[in-house]
Amino acid sequence: MVFEDIIKDIVDNISGCCSGIMMGVDGVMVGSYHKSETLEDLNILSIEFTKILKEIKSSLELLKAGDVQEIAVKTETMMYLIKMISDEYFVAVLLEPLGNFGKARYLMKKSIPSFHSEL
Amino acid sequence: MVFEDIIKDIVDNISGCCSGIMMGVDGVMVGSYHKSETLEDLNILSIEFTKILKEIKSSLELLKAGDVQEIAVKTETMMYLIKMISDEYFVAVLLEPLGNFGKARYLMKKSIPSFHSEL
Repeated sequence: MVFEDIIKDIVDNISGCCSGIMMGVDGVMVGSYHKSETLEDLNILSIEFTKILKEIKSSLELLKAGDVQEIAVKTETMMYLIKMISDEYFVAVLLEPLGNFGKARYLMKKSIPSFHSEL
Repeated sequence: MVFEDIIKDIVDNISGCCSGIMMGVDGVMVGSYHKSETLEDLNILSIEFTKILKEIKSSLELLKAGDVQEIAVKTETMMYLIKMISDEYFVAVLLEPLGNFGKARYLMKKSIPSFHSEL
């Protein structure tokens, strides 16, 4: 199963999910899939979040709170969810404000072994 | 109802919730409540997140994605959830990894009018 198929399987099975991306923590996209014209937004946001992720990690190190597993941000117009695949890669999705956030968390967690088997 | 009572009402009614805090986006704590010895961690993390919040806001402005309403971070040892009360204040809680994240989101959202009535 290639990365795009794993991402498609996540995006297609979440109500209100517009697009998904797999990215390296260096900001380079590995694979993506989209149902609507939101992929460019997701790409830009994920590149921005590679910087924010470093800051979150360094804040958490102060507290010895362990590695980041998930980050979620909700705004008036969207939900953005990141799930770490490894220290080097993450998968992220963009949802509508009333999209199924719980199912997104569940499916992204469930997909991790599939990503690992392709790395 | 004072701020501490609103925070206590949130923390006491979420399974696995250790502590809660209300803070200004300038990093100054307004009120807090804790059930375990995690308040200092929550305070430090929330001060760190006032800086991270600014970066998230500026990234979202690029996409015209609206104001931040919620941020959640899950690590191996904890869940940290921020809910914006206004442009100037937020409430944040610290949960155990298997704490009731969904109820935390629900109660924090439901508490916003109570915070507003005290501002």
